[in-house]
Formats: sequence, structure tokens, C-alpha cells
Amino acid sequence: MARPVTLFTGQWADLPLADLAAKCGDWGFDGLELASWGDHFDVAEALRDHAYCSAKRELLERHGLGCWAIGAHLVGQAVCDPIDERHQGVLPGDVWGDGDAEGVRRRAAERMKDTARAAARLGVQVVTGFTGSPIWHLLYSFPPNDFDRIERGYEEFAERWSPIVDVFDAEGVRFALEVHPTEIAYDFVTTRKAMDAIDHRKGFGINFDPSHFAHQFLDPPAFVETFGDRIYHAHVKDSKTRLDGRRSILGSHLDFSAAERGWTFVSPGRGDVDFDAVFRALNGIGYRGPLSIEWEDSEMDREWGARDALAFVRHTDFAPAGVAFDAAFKGEPG
Amino acid sequence: MARPVTLFTGQWADLPLADLAAKCGDWGFDGLELASWGDHFDVAEALRDHAYCSAKRELLERHGLGCWAIGAHLVGQAVCDPIDERHQGVLPGDVWGDGDAEGVRRRAAERMKDTARAAARLGVQVVTGFTGSPIWHLLYSFPPNDFDRIERGYEEFAERWSPIVDVFDAEGVRFALEVHPTEIAYDFVTTRKAMDAIDHRKGFGINFDPSHFAHQFLDPPAFVETFGDRIYHAHVKDSKTRLDGRRSILGSHLDFSAAERGWTFVSPGRGDVDFDAVFRALNGIGYRGPLSIEWEDSEMDREWGARDALAFVRHTDFAPAGVAFDAAFKGEPG
Amino acid sequence: MARPVTLFTGQWADLPLADLAAKCGDWGFDGLELASWGDHFDVAEALRDHAYCSAKRELLERHGLGCWAIGAHLVGQAVCDPIDERHQGVLPGDVWGDGDAEGVRRRAAERMKDTARAAARLGVQVVTGFTGSPIWHLLYSFPPNDFDRIERGYEEFAERWSPIVDVFDAEGVRFALEVHPTEIAYDFVTTRKAMDAIDHRKGFGINFDPSHFAHQFLDPPAFVETFGDRIYHAHVKDSKTRLDGRRSILGSHLDFSAAERGWTFVSPGRGDVDFDAVFRALNGIGYRGPLSIEWEDSEMDREWGARDALAFVRHTDFAPAGVAFDAAFKGEPG
Amino acid sequence: MARPVTLFTGQWADLPLADLAAKCGDWGFDGLELASWGDHFDVAEALRDHAYCSAKRELLERHGLGCWAIGAHLVGQAVCDPIDERHQGVLPGDVWGDGDAEGVRRRAAERMKDTARAAARLGVQVVTGFTGSPIWHLLYSFPPNDFDRIERGYEEFAERWSPIVDVFDAEGVRFALEVHPTEIAYDFVTTRKAMDAIDHRKGFGINFDPSHFAHQFLDPPAFVETFGDRIYHAHVKDSKTRLDGRRSILGSHLDFSAAERGWTFVSPGRGDVDFDAVFRALNGIGYRGPLSIEWEDSEMDREWGARDALAFVRHTDFAPAGVAFDAAFKGEPG
Amino acid sequence: MARPVTLFTGQWADLPLADLAAKCGDWGFDGLELASWGDHFDVAEALRDHAYCSAKRELLERHGLGCWAIGAHLVGQAVCDPIDERHQGVLPGDVWGDGDAEGVRRRAAERMKDTARAAARLGVQVVTGFTGSPIWHLLYSFPPNDFDRIERGYEEFAERWSPIVDVFDAEGVRFALEVHPTEIAYDFVTTRKAMDAIDHRKGFGINFDPSHFAHQFLDPPAFVETFGDRIYHAHVKDSKTRLDGRRSILGSHLDFSAAERGWTFVSPGRGDVDFDAVFRALNGIGYRGPLSIEWEDSEMDREWGARDALAFVRHTDFAPAGVAFDAAFKGEPG
Amino acid sequence: MARPVTLFTGQWADLPLADLAAKCGDWGFDGLELASWGDHFDVAEALRDHAYCSAKRELLERHGLGCWAIGAHLVGQAVCDPIDERHQGVLPGDVWGDGDAEGVRRRAAERMKDTARAAARLGVQVVTGFTGSPIWHLLYSFPPNDFDRIERGYEEFAERWSPIVDVFDAEGVRFALEVHPTEIAYDFVTTRKAMDAIDHRKGFGINFDPSHFAHQFLDPPAFVETFGDRIYHAHVKDSKTRLDGRRSILGSHLDFSAAERGWTFVSPGRGDVDFDAVFRALNGIGYRGPLSIEWEDSEMDREWGARDALAFVRHTDFAPAGVAFDAAFKGEPG
Repeated sequence: MARPVTLFTGQWADLPLADLAAKCGDWGFDGLELASWGDHFDVAEALRDHAYCSAKRELLERHGLGCWAIGAHLVGQAVCDPIDERHQGVLPGDVWGDGDAEGVRRRAAERMKDTARAAARLGVQVVTGFTGSPIWHLLYSFPPNDFDRIERGYEEFAERWSPIVDVFDAEGVRFALEVHPTEIAYDFVTTRKAMDAIDHRKGFGINFDPSHFAHQFLDPPAFVETFGDRIYHAHVKDSKTRLDGRRSILGSHLDFSAAERGWTFVSPGRGDVDFDAVFRALNGIGYRGPLSIEWEDSEMDREWGARDALAFVRHTDFAPAGVAFDAAFKGEPG
Repeated sequence: MARPVTLFTGQWADLPLADLAAKCGDWGFDGLELASWGDHFDVAEALRDHAYCSAKRELLERHGLGCWAIGAHLVGQAVCDPIDERHQGVLPGDVWGDGDAEGVRRRAAERMKDTARAAARLGVQVVTGFTGSPIWHLLYSFPPNDFDRIERGYEEFAERWSPIVDVFDAEGVRFALEVHPTEIAYDFVTTRKAMDAIDHRKGFGINFDPSHFAHQFLDPPAFVETFGDRIYHAHVKDSKTRLDGRRSILGSHLDFSAAERGWTFVSPGRGDVDFDAVFRALNGIGYRGPLSIEWEDSEMDREWGARDALAFVRHTDFAPAGVAFDAAFKGEPG
Repeated sequence: MARPVTLFTGQWADLPLADLAAKCGDWGFDGLELASWGDHFDVAEALRDHAYCSAKRELLERHGLGCWAIGAHLVGQAVCDPIDERHQGVLPGDVWGDGDAEGVRRRAAERMKDTARAAARLGVQVVTGFTGSPIWHLLYSFPPNDFDRIERGYEEFAERWSPIVDVFDAEGVRFALEVHPTEIAYDFVTTRKAMDAIDHRKGFGINFDPSHFAHQFLDPPAFVETFGDRIYHAHVKDSKTRLDGRRSILGSHLDFSAAERGWTFVSPGRGDVDFDAVFRALNGIGYRGPLSIEWEDSEMDREWGARDALAFVRHTDFAPAGVAFDAAFKGEPG
Repeated sequence: MARPVTLFTGQWADLPLADLAAKCGDWGFDGLELASWGDHFDVAEALRDHAYCSAKRELLERHGLGCWAIGAHLVGQAVCDPIDERHQGVLPGDVWGDGDAEGVRRRAAERMKDTARAAARLGVQVVTGFTGSPIWHLLYSFPPNDFDRIERGYEEFAERWSPIVDVFDAEGVRFALEVHPTEIAYDFVTTRKAMDAIDHRKGFGINFDPSHFAHQFLDPPAFVETFGDRIYHAHVKDSKTRLDGRRSILGSHLDFSAAERGWTFVSPGRGDVDFDAVFRALNGIGYRGPLSIEWEDSEMDREWGARDALAFVRHTDFAPAGVAFDAAFKGEPG
Repeated sequence: MARPVTLFTGQWADLPLADLAAKCGDWGFDGLELASWGDHFDVAEALRDHAYCSAKRELLERHGLGCWAIGAHLVGQAVCDPIDERHQGVLPGDVWGDGDAEGVRRRAAERMKDTARAAARLGVQVVTGFTGSPIWHLLYSFPPNDFDRIERGYEEFAERWSPIVDVFDAEGVRFALEVHPTEIAYDFVTTRKAMDAIDHRKGFGINFDPSHFAHQFLDPPAFVETFGDRIYHAHVKDSKTRLDGRRSILGSHLDFSAAERGWTFVSPGRGDVDFDAVFRALNGIGYRGPLSIEWEDSEMDREWGARDALAFVRHTDFAPAGVAFDAAFKGEPG
Repeated sequence: MARPVTLFTGQWADLPLADLAAKCGDWGFDGLELASWGDHFDVAEALRDHAYCSAKRELLERHGLGCWAIGAHLVGQAVCDPIDERHQGVLPGDVWGDGDAEGVRRRAAERMKDTARAAARLGVQVVTGFTGSPIWHLLYSFPPNDFDRIERGYEEFAERWSPIVDVFDAEGVRFALEVHPTEIAYDFVTTRKAMDAIDHRKGFGINFDPSHFAHQFLDPPAFVETFGDRIYHAHVKDSKTRLDGRRSILGSHLDFSAAERGWTFVSPGRGDVDFDAVFRALNGIGYRGPLSIEWEDSEMDREWGARDALAFVRHTDFAPAGVAFDAAFKGEPG
């Protein structure tokens, strides 16, 4: 086997984990990347109830599934963001609380520390997720930005996340930011700046997801080569541009399902990502962790798609070479 | 002459208008699109002092320059925007006032009405500018947008601008929104929605500027064809993508002068805009107004560039055909 | 199952239907789109012999095959065309008759009415086919066209086809023109004009076949979106351009098998059509009818190819989503 | 001077030659390629009136203009074409006569012989023009062509043109077919076949015009290299594709001025032809004849355009090298 | 079955043939193209020991494998090359001898004659291989080449290989040069020149391998069409360019496994070669010999890759059509 | 003036400098980059005759010409190369001597030291030129390279050039290698390796010439950004790919004038180099030295071309901005 293939459960949180695990075992997945929402993985429960984590493990194992990472995107987003009504929709009630922005950010930061503790209890070494960003909304500089303000945004990110990473370090768990528009890091430049800001601490790395790069016209394998020592987890997700001179690459404030968008997410293998090149790059940095399918395609039947995606990854991914080829020209048979 | 060529004075507001007009007359421009900031065109003065407008006209005429439009981008931006410290940097002190967001928006709306009145006094029929947007910051839907909220943004825009357009109508002046990221309309979809929201009123049209479309992968001539009856003014400005797999089309929160940006503005003729096609499209809709060079290129000497741009437009623009060609095959000479 | 997959029998008319049906059943097709030539479906017989249609149905059912459409391309072509010796080669003897052009056109029109009646007897609701064109030969305007003459061509089409569509309406059957060079409609512009001419009658729609668009550089999904409410049937057929600076996109008056042509038809999945995008567009308009493989590849073994094409469609087509994705972020498990 | 630059007068036949010559002399052209219609060059007059040709020459010389070729496109077209009402619009009355197809073709053939005789009297060695085609209308093989019929078309062309070429040979003049859709030769394949059919006679060559190749995706310099020994004259004309997924490369039966066409003719230098490469190729075959601007751009003022085109050619064309470069590395100064 | 699929054993010479044959039989290959190094096929042994060839055949047949060609790349290379230390690494000791350049070339030539003799004993009619080149090192003309020297290189090639081809002719075996950089022929121009030099002898043909053309931007199907009567064998091998503005197409003197190279070899189906087009072209020239996978991908597990490549070829290759398609429109069922 | 524009005299060495200087002064050049061959600049003379350099300066000044660099390509090439008969053709007789390879290399190294001394006497601070390469001929790794041998090549380069650079340092002159195939550095990777090998000494830098990068698919502005602190001189030279599937990017062992080459050098502005981007990049690193036109276009008249190139550079190059643009939005007029 080349690498384990898992399903990120975030887009399936409407299903009880028991049902989803049964399906995924049946379809042939090797494991799940558990979302920390729905009933998939409850951080607070995991800390309160000592049997919680082993019960989750047993449920997964009944279906032949492992778990190498949990996903904490929604709470993580609130750590650095300006807070608005959209956060209320996705945060646990006790993190939202009274909705006061700074209060929400602080409670989210505490919950992220707990997530590290809960991950340790579950026995996983990676938490994937988002950071939020104090400056994302300043993306397009009009009215003109004071660019010192942008620099201060990276500092604020580091100030808010460093204490969280301290707990990750203490628990022997790593945080893997999914580099993604709306986050502090979403491309080469901003990833470099974010890493500089947080001093290249080992506890803070990357959940590499090529679908967020394709529509930015970024080269996913080059990203893997550039930030190889900080890639702790990988998503398999695809996106497709549909540029025809009338659809904007900026998305037109339309939902992902709208035909007039300039790009959207599609089931892996049906978009612009060159996964052969991506898997080669992951081999090149020695990444042996899971390939976690984050399945999102607003135009396709979800269950058909998950199986199609799994088959695609099994067909496309491969183990690296162990033998140099020119050697064979000269070699003596054994 | 194909069409008058003017210079938009917004990027030259550090120069007194007297100096700038002398230069532009010398360089061979046909006129200026006066920015309503710096000392170029002061709306409040124009309403207070009856001689103000005729003095401006005389100054221009001394240098052989006409004026067909004034630009009100900075105040217009504040009408619909969430207000932050960046607006303070670009607004007149009496519009900013105490900086209370709703107060700023209301004072900006009043100033836009005055701009229509001042334009009428100066004898121009077009005010170019921005609208701001209550929803621009929701561009990338994470945390997931409530898309009803987006729709309400278009309604809010219409509510705030309709009373302004009433004054424009009364004064016989038209407002021309520069379709542009950060504004309520920045592409085909959003322009259509904004026009729907404001009920396709004749008083509200477009300042067409192709530089804002090229990096969105939009087709500028198609835009002209689609919204031809609302194009009241045109900017000549260019942009260039520099995508190499490492530079993001989203701009990386970098200033326009940064080498690592995926695109930037460049002097007309040196970027991605096909101006031959743009001028054909403008001919196709019967646009006979000025081509107003909005010169912005952070890497080029400004005065050299303005002359280079003027030469480029003179060389590239042309008058449409008045004779059908097949006719000549059959024609009898006179 | 996503959608039934059928084979259009037109290119297999050298085989008796009994043989072809046995093969197709064996290969796993869901049904056949019967050509109204060879012994596949004889319109005159179907009207004369009341048992004819049920015998055909039984034959198909023996091999597990359904039938949702019959194809009437050859007779339809003669309804509007200038008639020449090529029509004699493909028309039934009694439609050709003495070969007088207007007589041929009228007899072809009557046969099309009978085709509607026969389709109703067979229990299918769609007849696919061609219309011919009075103006196709004026494609390249030299000597210069009188463009009023072109407009009259659309009118003539409507005059000749309206009485036919009356019969289709009466029988509860719809005609689906395969939009195609040599027909009254072959691209976006001409389809719009043809639909205007025939007054957007519901009885006259489209058999969508992307292979005729690729070499015209047309966007098949955009065609589906534009004419979605008139797409009554869909062909799966592919074409490939082989442009190398020496091969003309116009085809050089060469047969499809010639290596020097600028494009040719190829087995589905081996050409320029993006079928993932096509199937998404068909899902987008709610098309649930058959995907009918019109297999044509002059360089490939026919039977190998039919199976390869079927496997390709089964692998590529999919059912649309029934669940919105953002919902899952918020959802409570059942 | 690199090569003389002339204007083909065909698109200016609504102007008396005296007026046109005055303009062209003024604009700086080196000469005219006289159309044999309007009052520009009347073949029948030239044979009847011995002073006619010298009067034309004197008129040209008064304006500093030479003449190296005359154009006979309209009459030539009728030699091989199926004849319809479009020919009546462009033929001299005595060639059209009663309009009987075969009679028209024969009278057109005789007029072409006279054109050779008249050219000799005027002292030019090249007649440019069209041949017509018995098979152009069979371009798209549906109903399926009998391809023997296509081959017979080339033979018919040779039969009709050989006697004409006999007269050209006798007069010491050459015919130069403008390779062009609607003619017997319009691309590489058909030019090779036409040349084979007419036995590669020296009297029958090519008027090379790259504008007819660009929208066929043919490589104009490769055409020059392939048929170099038969290129007797060259047009400078440009075309531009405007493909956006909705405009067909086939032209949609629209006039050249229509915005929805997939391509159209544009003023030289504003389209898809790489004229630097074209002029290099013409240098490569030793072509030293005129570059004759056939100016056609339905969207541009004609007189502005002719001057713009002349300036473009003067700027772009150049004389070939006379010195090998590596030589300079070793050379001893004189 | 479309065509037999074999594995070229050159890159597996570190394995004893017995082991490799067992694996390949198990994986489903139809045969092997035996390398004449390692223990796979020993030319000297084959001539000395009369049982050698039949023993090899029996070994292959035990695993269901045929053999249609043997590969003699390493010795062939030395026939025309300037000799350096790299040749010592890949030549048999008795061919290298004392390493004197001309002596090495002569001994290599004799060994190639023996290879023809041994191939005849084994019962194969094709020997694939390299020729070497006296002029490859003069590729980039600086210091400036004396181009007569280049022409003499082709002559030297012909002088050295003609006596070898004499023996091939005598044995009824053909030599198939793998057209490849570093050889006398590596593209269209040099293949034509080499074929001219050796007088288009039938005994000297081509082992077509598209992987060497893709990174030269050559069109593999066009190569097949151009040199079709000399294509005696075909390799299935792929290469992929990774050009990003920083990686040179020239390879940077880096090994094939280096990430910074502008191109590298990859497992078939994962690179730039359009194998559907390649197989069509091979069908077009009537090539029915083996498709021999030369598997080389420095980034992929070798055994996984060989099976992946075999599945790819089985899926992509197909037999040509035996029936003309238009016929079916007119055909009468049997 | 943006930057001085000079002509590199290497390709004009067949003309006496007096003649060439007269022409260049007349055409409007600002200066010459003198080749150290022909009678343009004789290193040995310059050291022997104290009046030599001032006489050269006076000659140039008579024609209004400056000199900022001398070119030493031919002798430099011999310092590291394997020596063959081609070097004899381009070296001074006393450097070639008896032609013994190591002797030639040593005499060439001494002459390069003298060139530094002569440059100092002439008062120029840059010597442009080549280094040669001990490993260029190992470009394509077959027979397989021992890659340690490649690494030793960089070391040998450093050993041979370090003593030369010592003299350059002593004389206050810098050597600027024209990065170029056949040299130790020809792309990003090899330039980085060469700079590493020679320890990033300041005395050893780059003569940036984009024409050598375009056909390698390298990004010239990225090269300028990467090696900006070592770019001491810049050539303006252009190249154009002519890839059509039949022409190899490797050049086919053809001379630059051959039509079948995949790329060749062309006059600046007529090829693939984006000089606007190049000049921006040079501005970006603060390069204010000459733009030296190395004119080479085997298809164009040399003198016409030199003037065309000069006009092109004058039109395209520009001075960088001195003012930040956003400032103007806020600025108060003086």
C-alpha cells in the first residue's frame, strides 16, 4: 500500500459517526480524519469522559478504520478573526457565549488548547484546522492599506497562537494549518510570513490541500517542495476553474454551487490539480502520512463521489522508488 | 481625431492643478478628468464660490484642455462601506467627522449629492467614482455565508444610492461607477445584480476600466457589449499578471509595487488588456466620450509614463467605419 | 444508476437489428436509439403493420434493452436542403421518387410526419434528426451574400417544419434537431435564430451532441445552459482537433479517415470534449434522459470501441447532489 | 527600401481611380494593384483602346505610383463556380448575359484570357484573382460525399483553367490564385491537389494572403516555404479570431461586421498574423515583389486605416541579410 | 488482442532473467525485449553455445512469454562515439579492451555483427539499439561549428554502420535505431539526414520511442507518419516537462531524479505523450509488432509501475477499424 | 535618458572600428561594448602601447560614444574548455600556439588576466565574456554520467578562474560571465552552482543576456531577481522559438540561419523575450549600466537591424518611479 487513505468527516457531520464509519469501512477507506463537530469528535467530552476516546477508537476499529488526525477548523477560525454572525453559525454554544468578539477569540483559543489535549488522549499526533486572520478582510488594498497594519496582523496571529502551540508541544501533538484563503496563510508569500512570525516552531505546521492553490494559479508541488519540513498532513481535494471571460476568478459573491462562478470545488481527479505531480512531491519530502479525502462537490451525489474519489486515489498514488535506475545498466544479477 | 484623450488627475493630486494642467497641455492631452481631492476640484468650494468653476475652466483652457467628467472615488467609497481607519486617510475632514460609521456614510452620501450639483455648475455631465460595498468583505465564503445576507447587501446599496441618483437626475448629471473589486459591482454577475437592484435607472451607469477585469480573467470587450447602454465614461488603464506558480492571483496582501504579487497595474499598452479590441467594442456601442488615462505603474517614472501612454492611445484608437465594404465591390465611382 | 446509456444504431445499419441487439445486451447497454433506416426501424412498416412496434419492443426486451428515441436524420435532411445526388444515396426510394427537388422535399416532410406517428406507436416521445438547410451552402460569404437571403432561409425552414411539428404535437412526440453543421442550426447564433423562426414551439427541440461543437471552438456546457429548456435528447460522441499549422479546421474536402484533416470524430473520451463538464451541465438542467452513444471513429475497431465507450460513460457520468454541503458544517446528526 | 508597398484597389472601387491615386500618392504608397472593376482597370477598354493603358500609367506616375499586378477576382470566380444570383451582383453585364450557368462560366473564361492580354498591354506580369470551385459547396460531407466526385472537381478546374493559362503563357503573364476558402485551393492539402491537377504549370501560381489562413489555424510561413516557387504575389491582410466558446469559427452565416462572428478581417498588424514571420519567409524564398495591402476592416475608418497599415508595413518589413554572422567572429577588418 | 505488450529488460538487468521472467509472466506481459547485458542475453554465449538460445526460449515460454526483439544499446553506442570513461562503465570487458578509442569502436562494431547473428539464432528479426554519434558533442554551435564537419559526421556514421548492416541483411535481421539525443539521429531533421547517409537501406530502421520527442517539442504521431516504412519496433515510454521558468529544458547537468530538472522520464500515461494519438499513428502505418514498455521513472516503485504501465497500455491500445463508416448509412443488413 | 544604449561590436569585427564608430554615432548609439578581437580592442597592444587606450577613447568620443565594457568571449571560452579545432578558428595565434589543450587553456587564462589590466587602462570596470566549461559536453547523460564528475567540473572551473579573478580584483575590474549554453553556467541551477564553486566572489559576476534563456523556457526577469547582486552588465538580444512539432528545441545540429531549427536569434523586439518585463526587473535591482545590443539575426540586413533595435530599446526602456502612488491620494499640493 502506498499510503493510508482517509476521509475527512467535516462535510458529513449531518450523519452520526456510527453510520458514517460503517459506510466508509464498507467502501474500503483506511481511516477517518475526525471533525471536532457533529457527534464525530467532541473535545469537551473527550476531556471529561475517560472512556470517550477508547469508545471512538473501538467504533472505528469495528469497521477496520484508523485515525491519524482530527480536524478543528471551525473553532480555530475564531482565534484570530474579526467575529461576526457567521461564526455564531459554526461555533459551539459555549465558545460563542455572548458573542463579544474578544471573548469569542479567547474562548476559541482555550478550546484549541483542549483540542491538543483531547488529541493526545485519542492517540493522534496531528490536529488539522484553521487559524482565522486579523487581516484577511484587507485583501484588496482599497481604500489604500497602511501596510504596517498588515505586518501587525502577522504579529497578532503569532501572539494569539503561540500559547496554543505551547500546549500542543507539551502534549506531543502538532497543529497543521490548512493553508487557505481567509486564513493567515493562503499562498507562498503569506505562508512564509506566517512561519516567520511564529518563528518556525515545530509545533505549527501545514495541512497541505492543493484545491486552495489551483484557482490562485499556484503550483502545488512547488509548495510541497518549499515548505516540505512543515507538511504534517495532506488533503485530497480538487477545484476547477471555469473561466470563460464572463466568470470572475474572485467568485462573484456566489455560493459554490452557482454555475456563474469562475471556479468551484469538484471531486478529486475531475479538476485542475495534477495529483500525479502532487503525490510525487509528497514522496519527494518523505511524507508517509494519510491522504485524507476532503470530499466536496456541490454537483455530485455525495456517496457515489466518495467512492469515486477513493478509487481515484488508489489508482493514482504510488510508493517511491527504492532503486536508482542507471544502476541497472551496470548491475550484476544476484 | 478619434476621441478626446484625457488624464485622470487622481494619482497626481500631490501637484497643484496649475502645474499639472501646464504639463498636460504641453504633452498634448485634450483634457483632464478632475479628481475631487487635492486642489483639483473642491466640491464644497464650487458650491460656495460662484467663480470657482469658471476659474477652473479658464485655467484648463489656457492650456488647451477640456473637462468632461470629475472623479469622486474617495467620498463615494464611504457611502456603503463598513468604515475603518483607512477611510479616515482618504476622506475630507468634515466627511469623516467623528468617525462614527453610520455618520460617515450619511455625510458621504450628502457630499455625493453636492458633487452632482458642483458638476452641473462646472458644466460636466458625468461624475465617475466608487460606491463602496456592504458585502465586499464577505467575498470568500468562510465561515459560510448566509447568502440572503449577500442579497440584502445589494438592497442596502440601492437604498443608500437611490436618493443620491435622484439629485444627479435633477441636475442632469450621471454617476458612473468604476466597476472594481471592493465595490458593489466588480464583474459581470455583480454588475447585473447591482443594476437590477437600482432598477436600471439611467442616472446610474458605469465608468468602464478594463484594468480591473484582466486579472479577474474577464473579457473587457464582452463587458462593453453586455452593459453598453450604461457605459458613460472610460478609463485607459492596464494590468499585467505575473503568474509563475508562486505568485497568487489574490495579491498576497502585498502593495502593488511588490515583485511577488501575481498581478499589478502597468502603464497602458504594457499589460494584458487588448486595447485594440476594447476600442472596437467602444466604437461598437457608439461611445464617443473621452478615453481617460488613469495612469498607475509603480515601477515607471510618472511623467515619462504619462507621455508614453498618450502616444499609445493616439496610435491605437481609431474612428469606426462609415462605409460598408462589400458595397465597394459593386459600387460605381462618382 | 446515473442515467440510461443507449447506442444510436445509425452507424450499425449494416447489421440486422436482431444481431445488434444481442451484442448490445451482452455488452451491457441499457437501450438503443433506433435509426429509421436499415431494418432497425421502418416508419412505413410501423404504420402499416400493427404488430411491428410490439415485435421491435419484444426483440429489445429479450436483450434487456429499452428504447427512448428513434433517429430520423436522413429523411429529415431532405426537408429543407437543396437536393443533389448525395440525397439519393441515403433516402428511401419512395421519398426520392423522381428526384425533383421540391418533390423530394415534400415527400420527406410527409415521411417526417409519419415518423412522429410511428414513434407514438412505438411508445417513444422523442424523434432525433436533422432538418436540412436552404442556406448552408452560403456559409462563406463569397461572392458576397445578400444577407436578406440568409434571413429568408430561416423563414423557409420555419415554413417547412411548422406543419411537421403540428403532427408531432398532435402525437405527443417531440422533434430533437441534432445541432450540426449542414443543418439550419449548428452553433449558438444559428440555434437562437432557428428557435426564433419557429417561435420557440415546444414540439421542436434539440438533440445535444457535443462532438459538433468542439471543432467549432464552442463550449458545450455553455450550450446546454443557454438552450436547456429545449434539450430533449443527448448524444455522447467525441471529436479531436489535430491542428499542426498544415491541417485546416475546415477539413480540406477530405473524408473523416484522412490523416491530413484538421479534426475528426473519435471514440468518446479520446477527444476534445470535456464530458465531466458536459454531464454536470446536463445535471444542471435536470436532464434525466438517455446518454446515447453515437459511436464513430474511423480508426478504431467498432465493437471494441462500443464497449470502451460504454465503460467510459459508466465511469464518468454521475447523479447530481441532493444535499447542500455547507449544511453539513452545522448539521446535527439524526 | 525593403520591397514596394502597394494598395489593392478592389475595396475602393466606389472611388474614381483618379481620386484614389491622388490619395495613395499622398499617403506614400509605392503603387497600386488595380482591380479590374469600377473604373480602375477595364479589360475590354484596354483591348479596344490602344491609349487606355498608357493613360492609366500616366495617371499613376503623376502620383509617384507604380503598378505590378492587376486583380481579376470577380470574373475569375465565375469560371468554375456553380452560378447563382450572387454572381450577377459582381459580374460585368456582358459576362453575366442571360445568366445561364454554363454560358456564364464560358464567358468568364474568355474574359480571363482577355485579362492576360490587357495585363500584357499595361506591362504587368501578374494577374491576381480567384478560380471559383465546382466542389466548394461539398465542404462538409453530409449527406456523405462520394469522394470521387471531389476528385472530379479538381479535374474540372484543370480543364477549365488550362486554356486560360495557355493564353497567359503566350502573353508572358502569370496568374496568381489567391488561395482562399470558396476557391479550388484554400489550404495546404487543396493547394497541393490543385497544383497536381494543373500539372504544376508555371503560368499558374499563388497570390499569398495570410489572412485566409489564420482562422483556419494554418501556419502562413510554412505555406510560403512549401509552395515557394509558385508564390508570384503577396497580399498584406489580417484576420483575428474572437473565440469565446459562443462564437463559431465557421462564422454563423453572419456578415464580417457582426460582433458574434468567431473571426473577422482587421487592419494589418491588429490581428493574428505574425507578419515578422511572414516577411522572413518571403525573404527566405527570395520574393522581391510588392507587398500589396488588401485593406478590409469593417470596424475602422478606411482612410485612417490605409495609412495605419502602410506605416505598419514600413516598420515591420525588412531586407534580408547579406552577410553570414559567424564570419564576423573571424573576420579581419578591411 | 490489439498488439503484444512486452517489457524491455534493460532497466532490470540487476535481476536474473529467471526471476524477471517469472514476475512478468505473473503480471500478464506477452513477452520480453531482452537486453544484451546482465544475464538476459549474452551475444558471445549465444554464438558459442548452440543450446543457449533454445534454453532462453524455454525459460520464456514457461512463463507464457514471447520474444520479438533484443536490445543492443550499450555496445551500439560505442560504434560511432568519441570514447570516454563513461563507456567503460557500460561495455563488456572484451569490447572495452585497452580503452583505445578507435579500438573500442572497432570491437563494438564486430560485436554488433555478432548480435545480428545471435538474434538470428534466437529467431528474432529485430535488434533495437543505439548508434552513437561522432558529432553529438557539437550540438550547440559555440565555438562556431564548421558545418562541413557536421556533414562529415553523417558520412562517418554511414561508413561505420554499413558493414554492420551488411551482416544484418545476410542474417535476415533488421537493426532499429532508437532515435534519441546522443545518437546520430534524434529528431526529424537528423533522422532524415541519417537515412540519406545510409542510403535508406532496408536493414537499418527505427525503434520508435516517443519519450525522447516530447521534451524536444516534437510531434510523435507526425514522426510515425513521416518515417513509417522504417519503423520496425516501438517503445512505450513517457516523459514529462516541469517547466516553471526556473527549470531548463536542457536538464541542468542533473540526474533524472533531480527535482530541478526541466523534464524527466515518467511511467507511461503519466507524462506528456498522447498515447492514443501514438497508437493511432502506429495503426495508420500498419505496425503490428510489439509495444515494448521501457519502464523508467526514478520516482516510482519499479514493480508497481511495471504493472501500472501494462494496465495503461492494455486500456489505451486498440485494433484499427476494418469497416468504413459511411457505408453503414447505406448498408443493407445481411 | 533611461540608460545608455550601446552596441556590442563582436558581430561587426569585419569592419574597422573607425568605420563602425562612425556609423553608430550617426545612428544615435550612446556607446560601444568593444570586442577584444578584430581591430576593435587589442589587449596585447593596449598593454604594450601606452597611447593605445586614449586613442581608442578619442576615436569613440569623436562620434559621441562612450565605452563601459569590453567583451572577451573568445579567449575566455578557452580557459575551461576541452580544446578542439573550433577554438583555433577564433583564438589569437599566440594563444593557440601549438594547440596543445592544456597549453591553450593556460595561455588563455593569462590573456584574461591581461584583459583585466587592459580594461583598467581603458578605464572600464567590466569585462564581459565566456568561461568555457569542462563538462558542457556531458549535457545529456548517456552513456550515464558519473555525477561526481559533474561536480568536479564546477571545481575545475573555480580553480582555473580564481587566479584570473584575483587580477580582476587587483585592477578594480569585474568579470561578467554571459550565462549561456556551452558555458559553466547557462541556467538557474548551473549559475547557482558556479557561484557556489567560486565562493560568490564579487569579482565574478554576470553579463545578463535574455536571449539564451527564452529557448530554455527560463524566465529572464526571475533570473534578474535571483542573481541581482551579481548582474554587472546586460545584453539586449532576442530569440524566437519556431516549434511546429517537426523542429526540435535542440537545434538539429543546424546553423542559426536554417529554417528547420526550432529556435534562432532575432533582432530585439521580434522574438520571445518580454523586454518590458526585463527592463522592469533591471530597474528593480537598481541596474543603471548600459543596455548593450548584441545584434544577431541571420535573416535581416545588419545595418537596418541595428537601427531598428536601437529604436526599439529607446521606445521600451524607461526610468523607474521615484514616487509612491498611493501617496498621491492623500497628498497636499506644494
